[in-house]
Amino acid sequence: MNNLTIVGKKIPKRDAPLKATGSAVYIQDLKIPGMLHGKILYSKYPHARITGLDTSMAEKLPGVRAVVTASDMPANFRIGVMKDNPPLKTGKVLSIRDEIAAVAAISPEIAEEALSLIKVEYEELPGTFDPLEAMKEGAPLIHEEAKSNILKMPWKLVCGDVEAAKKESAFIVEDTFSTPWVTHCCLGTSGCVAQLDAKNNLTLYSNTQIPSLAQNDYIEALNAFGLKGKRVRIVQSVIGGAFGSKLDTYAYEYIAILLALKTRKPVKIVFSREEEFFATSPRQCTITKISHGCDKEGRLTFREMEMVLDNGAYTSWGATTPSVMMLPISSLYKVPNVKYVAKCVYTNNTYSQAMRGYGNPQATFAIESSLDQLAEKAGIDPYELRLKNANEPGEITPQRFKITSCGMKECIDEVVKRLDWKGKKGKGGNRGVGMASLIHVGGGARVYKSDGCGTIIKMDDFGKVDVFTGASDIGQGSETIIAQIVAEVLGIPIDDVNVINNDTDICPWDVGVHASRTTFVAGNAALGAAKKIKAQILEIAAKLLEEEPASLDIKNGVVFSVKNSEKTIPLGKALRKLHYTLGGNMLMAEYFYDPANENFDKEFKGNLSVSYAYGAHGVEVEVDRETGKVKILNYIAAHDVGKAINPMLLEGQIYGGGLMGLGYALGEKMIYEKGYLKNGNFLDYKMPTVKDIPPVQAVIVETDEKDGPFGAKGIGEPGLVPTAPAIANAIYDAVGVRIKDLPITPEKVLAALREKEGQTHK
Amino acid sequence: MNNLTIVGKKIPKRDAPLKATGSAVYIQDLKIPGMLHGKILYSKYPHARITGLDTSMAEKLPGVRAVVTASDMPANFRIGVMKDNPPLKTGKVLSIRDEIAAVAAISPEIAEEALSLIKVEYEELPGTFDPLEAMKEGAPLIHEEAKSNILKMPWKLVCGDVEAAKKESAFIVEDTFSTPWVTHCCLGTSGCVAQLDAKNNLTLYSNTQIPSLAQNDYIEALNAFGLKGKRVRIVQSVIGGAFGSKLDTYAYEYIAILLALKTRKPVKIVFSREEEFFATSPRQCTITKISHGCDKEGRLTFREMEMVLDNGAYTSWGATTPSVMMLPISSLYKVPNVKYVAKCVYTNNTYSQAMRGYGNPQATFAIESSLDQLAEKAGIDPYELRLKNANEPGEITPQRFKITSCGMKECIDEVVKRLDWKGKKGKGGNRGVGMASLIHVGGGARVYKSDGCGTIIKMDDFGKVDVFTGASDIGQGSETIIAQIVAEVLGIPIDDVNVINNDTDICPWDVGVHASRTTFVAGNAALGAAKKIKAQILEIAAKLLEEEPASLDIKNGVVFSVKNSEKTIPLGKALRKLHYTLGGNMLMAEYFYDPANENFDKEFKGNLSVSYAYGAHGVEVEVDRETGKVKILNYIAAHDVGKAINPMLLEGQIYGGGLMGLGYALGEKMIYEKGYLKNGNFLDYKMPTVKDIPPVQAVIVETDEKDGPFGAKGIGEPGLVPTAPAIANAIYDAVGVRIKDLPITPEKVLAALREKEGQTHK
Repeated sequence: MNNLTIVGKKIPKRDAPLKATGSAVYIQDLKIPGMLHGKILYSKYPHARITGLDTSMAEKLPGVRAVVTASDMPANFRIGVMKDNPPLKTGKVLSIRDEIAAVAAISPEIAEEALSLIKVEYEELPGTFDPLEAMKEGAPLIHEEAKSNILKMPWKLVCGDVEAAKKESAFIVEDTFSTPWVTHCCLGTSGCVAQLDAKNNLTLYSNTQIPSLAQNDYIEALNAFGLKGKRVRIVQSVIGGAFGSKLDTYAYEYIAILLALKTRKPVKIVFSREEEFFATSPRQCTITKISHGCDKEGRLTFREMEMVLDNGAYTSWGATTPSVMMLPISSLYKVPNVKYVAKCVYTNNTYSQAMRGYGNPQATFAIESSLDQLAEKAGIDPYELRLKNANEPGEITPQRFKITSCGMKECIDEVVKRLDWKGKKGKGGNRGVGMASLIHVGGGARVYKSDGCGTIIKMDDFGKVDVFTGASDIGQGSETIIAQIVAEVLGIPIDDVNVINNDTDICPWDVGVHASRTTFVAGNAALGAAKKIKAQILEIAAKLLEEEPASLDIKNGVVFSVKNSEKTIPLGKALRKLHYTLGGNMLMAEYFYDPANENFDKEFKGNLSVSYAYGAHGVEVEVDRETGKVKILNYIAAHDVGKAINPMLLEGQIYGGGLMGLGYALGEKMIYEKGYLKNGNFLDYKMPTVKDIPPVQAVIVETDEKDGPFGAKGIGEPGLVPTAPAIANAIYDAVGVRIKDLPITPEKVLAALREKEGQTHK
Repeated sequence: MNNLTIVGKKIPKRDAPLKATGSAVYIQDLKIPGMLHGKILYSKYPHARITGLDTSMAEKLPGVRAVVTASDMPANFRIGVMKDNPPLKTGKVLSIRDEIAAVAAISPEIAEEALSLIKVEYEELPGTFDPLEAMKEGAPLIHEEAKSNILKMPWKLVCGDVEAAKKESAFIVEDTFSTPWVTHCCLGTSGCVAQLDAKNNLTLYSNTQIPSLAQNDYIEALNAFGLKGKRVRIVQSVIGGAFGSKLDTYAYEYIAILLALKTRKPVKIVFSREEEFFATSPRQCTITKISHGCDKEGRLTFREMEMVLDNGAYTSWGATTPSVMMLPISSLYKVPNVKYVAKCVYTNNTYSQAMRGYGNPQATFAIESSLDQLAEKAGIDPYELRLKNANEPGEITPQRFKITSCGMKECIDEVVKRLDWKGKKGKGGNRGVGMASLIHVGGGARVYKSDGCGTIIKMDDFGKVDVFTGASDIGQGSETIIAQIVAEVLGIPIDDVNVINNDTDICPWDVGVHASRTTFVAGNAALGAAKKIKAQILEIAAKLLEEEPASLDIKNGVVFSVKNSEKTIPLGKALRKLHYTLGGNMLMAEYFYDPANENFDKEFKGNLSVSYAYGAHGVEVEVDRETGKVKILNYIAAHDVGKAINPMLLEGQIYGGGLMGLGYALGEKMIYEKGYLKNGNFLDYKMPTVKDIPPVQAVIVETDEKDGPFGAKGIGEPGLVPTAPAIANAIYDAVGVRIKDLPITPEKVLAALREKEGQTHK
């Protein structure tokens, strides 16, 4: 490990020059000869009965090639996790993003004009916009056939005996926390081009983050259209952000396929910024009741949580985030007794989707805020409470997670040291420090039956390699990481490694970009294939050098004997000896890596991931008592990453995650009023900008994960998980008010300060 | 073999719908954002000294981005087999296709205009246009540094003792035959787009037929430009014909690279039809002195040939065709004693290139014409002479070719039978029959150190496969053949097989499309990879079905027990069982096939190919004594193909080859006068058109080649080899005149008739 030449180095992202020079081809840039442009007509009301629909005027508009409605879709075809979402709606609409009709035309402008010519008559219906109301008996049903607004999803985890633990606890706190809808804010909006060949095989150009799973979804769709046994190819454009938003297939994609079938032309649908806000799915909003207890020494005795999630009108992965929330709920710190129940509730709001952290930020906000309350009640410094209960290597948590490497204590120590915690905690002057920790899956999560990824490598006569990986690069830099791993194993310059990662025809299967799995899982797949190639090289070279393969290694494109430094042969020369001979050969290898993690059992227990990532964030804030505005003076983000394969990319993940967490903590919220989105644009939706970036120190803690490629763990999601509670805790330390409802806007801080001071703002 | 469901079937070419609907992307169609257009200025004279060159006016033309001359090229960079060709010339120009300067501009029109603004001053020099003159002592040297106009290429083959054989021969004939320059007439003209990335890695979009070898050539070129260790990627557009013309890299490609380096933009150069005629390389023209002898029974005793080839001003593969000519010269029929000497001679004419058959048509024209002369002299029916001396399986020829399968006698018998030879031979009435046979390599030729091809296959959850093959489809249908082979092995529908064959980043190495090798070599590579996948499938299925793998097979996507018909499992189900489990796997396999053929030794002996293709063509003609025009009344083309993998494509090759042979026999000739091409367009160059197509019967003789995929041999080139001599022989049978100089134009026939009749045309 000390001899690493490429792994562990700060190597710039491979796609940086393309992106910096404007030559990256995003879905927006893609043009295919004969391509038409599709546009979608959405519902005018969040809840209404469609009483009339007339597309005849739109059809007559010159340049329009097709107008489609629900009647053009296969009758029972539904998408979504609960198969509750017809891509084109008829009868009733259930949210303002409901798709009613769509148009394909020779230009986007004509398509847009055609939409305005479609006449829809509605009978508006009263809507249900509050999940607590929607849960009540007798509430109007969103989906009548479902019999209840509460989704039939058994989110319940019980570990140990919480009731007994309560009785034995010295200190108990209980409170309620809530989080808003926030959206991914991908700078590259969603889009696709659907193209069918003469035999109705489909190519979908897309910015999906799940090419292999999307492929299956479209195969099902073609089946629904009566087109059995067709081939589906997914070609990914350069992806301008995904963060979970592109973890599912969407109505617009099926509409594009329908329009392509109708017109026999490629059809492109690309979302406008406004559509990206209202017609993609945000992080689900939550209301969480939490109770924590500890003994006299501050050892945690139990954690109990009840959660309600506004599911919106349809189901996507947002409805399943309670499964991943269970990870911090059961296993962030050592807690012997845990109980968690969550309810996802249909409303006439927008429906939710996966987003970086996948429920973890919501759960951790409640847990880490509550822990500070418990520390206060128990009279223990919050950092000491955390350290006392911190996870450790070798632990098996109540939910049966097997902790291998764990640098949680080191991360807490780094925060305490670098933030001057002891010097600054509780010192007043409107300044305060706060911290929060995190646990997350560190290398995939077995949420499907496979968590695998495949890799194929071929090597040319000069030692240059092409790597076909299932792993999608959604901006996180997996292309660079995989190139580093392969170059390191093969002892070749990184520029000799070409990574192909955007085409299901070429790239082996992969379950998709989620669960911070790519470096770990795709990295291991690349490692496996590269090792097979290396073994072949050493075997050839051993014959040429008259050595044992085990005595040989490769560095900088030269095979050498570790025993006799004079025995060397340039890699290319060995390869050409192998190739240019009778019965010649060239090196190719393939490898499929599926980690030894477990699906949950029926009680939601099992070792979901083969490794877990840890971290602790600490912040120092200053609160302006006049305005309520919170300023971040210092931000320490310490992460246990196993091994940093590329510290530059890793820091990028930490900075990016932290900034996303900052937006979640202090400013971002999708404001839905009675089902209508009120701030669906970058002017009104307060994403942090460059001026909001605080001073951040990214601290890398290396723990050498035994199953990780070169010891690495995943870092894609963790960066944003503890930000909000760390800030909330710091505000409390600074001014003694605790904001329990994200985002922590100046108005809320000011109101809390005034309430605390016994004033009423009039 | 009796159970084949896909191999042996007439399956239409996969690219047919794309081509028929105009959606195939030829190099002409390719557009890359920011792309510039390059044009080349050629020499005005076939031999001249450049005394002045002024590009300043061209550089000033708005829209021009670069003008380059020889001074922009690395000083000693040369291309060509003998490294005698600088891509941009300075000092002296040696032919009218010599490149002097080139322009890149924002449109082809501006580039063209810029060419007209380049001022070149020449001092015209006397040229050498006749190879016989050029060979004489004291002839002006084309390349002064070469010391002689005769290329230093040791084309000499001696088997047995020709002089002794002459003495023992009962009958001897001797004559001289000649063939003209003909060109490939690709409907898709030559072209490329050169694109460099930020790190100077090169992508060349091209219609080359040798992607892997071209890659090496461009790596060398980048090295010459001082760009060491760069990656080169070749992406092939759909190829609109190649026939050998795209078997080398050309000056225009290096010029495109130079222009791309100068401008930092992609640069496209596409030949006009006129450029395609004068600036690509035709089939070399030959003058052949041949002598043949036989004993009293008609057994061949010797064959002696001396050949002069006009090499033109530079060397490409045309200069090496004598190596392949040796195959028919030594081994077409059993001839114990053979002597062959060939000289390639520099002139100020155009230089030559590979073309379908690679010298074989020129050699076979002389051999098969001469054989008919010998038959007449010996008083034997020409078909009997051929049958008596025909090659047979198991034979080892004097040049050490090991004949495995051989259906030559069957082919001759088919011709005799179907042409009603015995009923029509020598019957007069201006009608006659003639025949000729062929031998050609039947599955590659080891002309490089490797004759290999690689394949990678991956299979998805539904049994659909992607095949990455090194084999380029240049219109011959290899994509379809490979899909058939893989589908047959895997027992899946052919539409489930996707073949990727146009990108060196994805496709494994292959030596290129030549020597009728693709079905054989790439077919065997695909077969090998498919068998590895099949073995894995049977292993999984065996576990699931509780059977031995050896008892299982796959048909129509179902794995079944050959012993117990109730034991079946759909392929997809077995694959998903393998994939969706802990430690899951997906099927991928790779295979590199390099046939066990031999490079020639220094005496040009060795088993060049592991199999040999045979055929016999017979024609019935009618000669118009008034006009000299020859009409083909009937055409039988019988070919030993080993096994017909796709009879439809095979017949296409035979029809296409026969028609190309017909053009060679009766009409095509590039007319060069003092170095200038006089008929470089489709109006003046007489390629056969649809109206010239004779009634052709393609007869497929199957012989089951033991090393061929499913028993197949190659058929890409043979179709045109025996056409011209068969027609010449038939004309002789019809009217008693023998035309020894191709093409057999009406003028030549008429002149010969008049001479025979003792008349003189005044």
